[in-house]
Amino acid sequence: MTAEIHRLKGAAPSLDPIMRLVASDMNAVNAVILDRMQSQIPLIPELAGHLISGGGKRLRPMITLAAARLLDYPGTRQHKLAAAVEFIHTATLLHDDVVDGSDMRRGKRTANIIWGNPASVLVGDFLFSRAFELMVEDGSLKVLKILSNASAVIAEGEVDQLTAQRQVSTSEDKYLAIIGAKTAALFAAAARIAAVIAEREGEVEDALDAYGRNLGIAFQLVDDAIDYVSDEATMGKGVGDDFRDGKVTLPVILAYARGSAEERAFWHDAMMGRRISDDDLSHATALLAKHNGIADTLEHARHYGQRAIDALGIFPAGVAKAALVEAAEFAVSRAY
Amino acid sequence: MTAEIHRLKGAAPSLDPIMRLVASDMNAVNAVILDRMQSQIPLIPELAGHLISGGGKRLRPMITLAAARLLDYPGTRQHKLAAAVEFIHTATLLHDDVVDGSDMRRGKRTANIIWGNPASVLVGDFLFSRAFELMVEDGSLKVLKILSNASAVIAEGEVDQLTAQRQVSTSEDKYLAIIGAKTAALFAAAARIAAVIAEREGEVEDALDAYGRNLGIAFQLVDDAIDYVSDEATMGKGVGDDFRDGKVTLPVILAYARGSAEERAFWHDAMMGRRISDDDLSHATALLAKHNGIADTLEHARHYGQRAIDALGIFPAGVAKAALVEAAEFAVSRAY
Repeated sequence: MTAEIHRLKGAAPSLDPIMRLVASDMNAVNAVILDRMQSQIPLIPELAGHLISGGGKRLRPMITLAAARLLDYPGTRQHKLAAAVEFIHTATLLHDDVVDGSDMRRGKRTANIIWGNPASVLVGDFLFSRAFELMVEDGSLKVLKILSNASAVIAEGEVDQLTAQRQVSTSEDKYLAIIGAKTAALFAAAARIAAVIAEREGEVEDALDAYGRNLGIAFQLVDDAIDYVSDEATMGKGVGDDFRDGKVTLPVILAYARGSAEERAFWHDAMMGRRISDDDLSHATALLAKHNGIADTLEHARHYGQRAIDALGIFPAGVAKAALVEAAEFAVSRAY
Repeated sequence: MTAEIHRLKGAAPSLDPIMRLVASDMNAVNAVILDRMQSQIPLIPELAGHLISGGGKRLRPMITLAAARLLDYPGTRQHKLAAAVEFIHTATLLHDDVVDGSDMRRGKRTANIIWGNPASVLVGDFLFSRAFELMVEDGSLKVLKILSNASAVIAEGEVDQLTAQRQVSTSEDKYLAIIGAKTAALFAAAARIAAVIAEREGEVEDALDAYGRNLGIAFQLVDDAIDYVSDEATMGKGVGDDFRDGKVTLPVILAYARGSAEERAFWHDAMMGRRISDDDLSHATALLAKHNGIADTLEHARHYGQRAIDALGIFPAGVAKAALVEAAEFAVSRAY
């Protein structure tokens, strides 16, 4: 709990320190993003801007920027690369919302609802291509390798999740593999590339990768928990969305593994979309409580959050390290 | 008409010479494709293989390979890069079929019909990422720049086409800009990268780009014409598909521009999807005949095919040049 010395005792961890740390860098990243999402085809910046300026926290580029600060990297290469990371993330969000048929994200209607699936697919492709153009301009084959590999892994994770859809017997290990690919791979890459541009390869690169990867898993697990406890006002999407979509997340996996035959039959029917009324959701929530599905998911998240923090052990204390540590504490404290 | 000396007088131009020229290289490319479309997630090679082994002509990688032969390039880098080009093409086909809601391609049911839109979107993303991984392995930033730029241009062209959908007043220039982006950019890049690996930049690179770009436009225009005259047995899709989908292609643009007010009203209604019966298609075909819509589209295609051939003027005569010339002749003679 290194970061506690940097804030008032008992104050909740927040993203404020990391946001302050990278504020000027983030302005530069936002300028790159705004510039590079332009196109002679007006629909492209219109649709991309809806999502990009739509209240996202820019977590992944923030990690690239903070990691560059941690390493005292003196240059500006992180700006284009952080923008590339955000473009890859935005492209996957656009495609995810098509894949899931989502209608709300970050409290707004999704692009696929406003402009249709075809436009979302194609603008996602455009942003993905632009991400690679930015990396090519930067000129590091190593960065290109890290991010093209992460992109392939993300797509594999998404397909894996699609295959596992509604399969209530998905194992915990399988689920961790899926979120390790679809969510954590980009966090890991976002952190790792900072080591490459700072020419601190080897141990430093691996440590940053581990920080990003564990943080990404922690974030995803907390998201999965929040889906059963939050409301639309705080999350920008409704409680129980995952339940109604038949998404087999860790809370469900734990409750299913620990449940009676009768409970398992309920979960099976629910994930198949046959029991998704409000009453069913209440029943699901009761089962999750009975088996500690939410509490243990958050406990797992804390485990990964702590691993993220411990991965930073090799770095000297300082403002950047404290901000990264507090970001991990924030990740796992959001739902409390 | 350089190539005529290589075939019997009067024989129809064919792809046989270029296929013979690159046969051994294409085996190497196919091995890369098969190897790199693998994944631990079984759905990925299953879905990708359906399209990749589904009877496509591998035109774009063929052009990379033939251009490398034209330049007497002695190495093997073209194999991975040609596979990358085919992966980008396959990814765009998967996404196109989702965007268009297509149900048939190359005489088979489309992947989106068999496995659903979500899987097609995600496997497309996977192949696109794999394409970049292959390019990164090759290690040329210049090749990466050419192909990432082409990918962004393709996506822009697709979005532009989406915006122009059902707009019967689309101008000929606008249409040429769309197909220049969505189709010809990848042909141009496929040819251009051969110059990069053969270290023949400048004039040679520009000549190959021009060959590919003009050939791509010619191919697309002939495809547009064939859609109104062919049958499912030869094309793998039904006659009039573009008509029923409201796709405003050059034959329609010409007939609309040359038509009476009454005819224009018909085209408008047809492209809006309100007159797409078999009788309507017969009427459309009659209007195309009256205004030379098909004949002049093919004439335009021949113009671009000739420009492709002329772009090769700087290269010495030989088997490779003759094969590339005959490929362009084939492109514009398919519909006769």
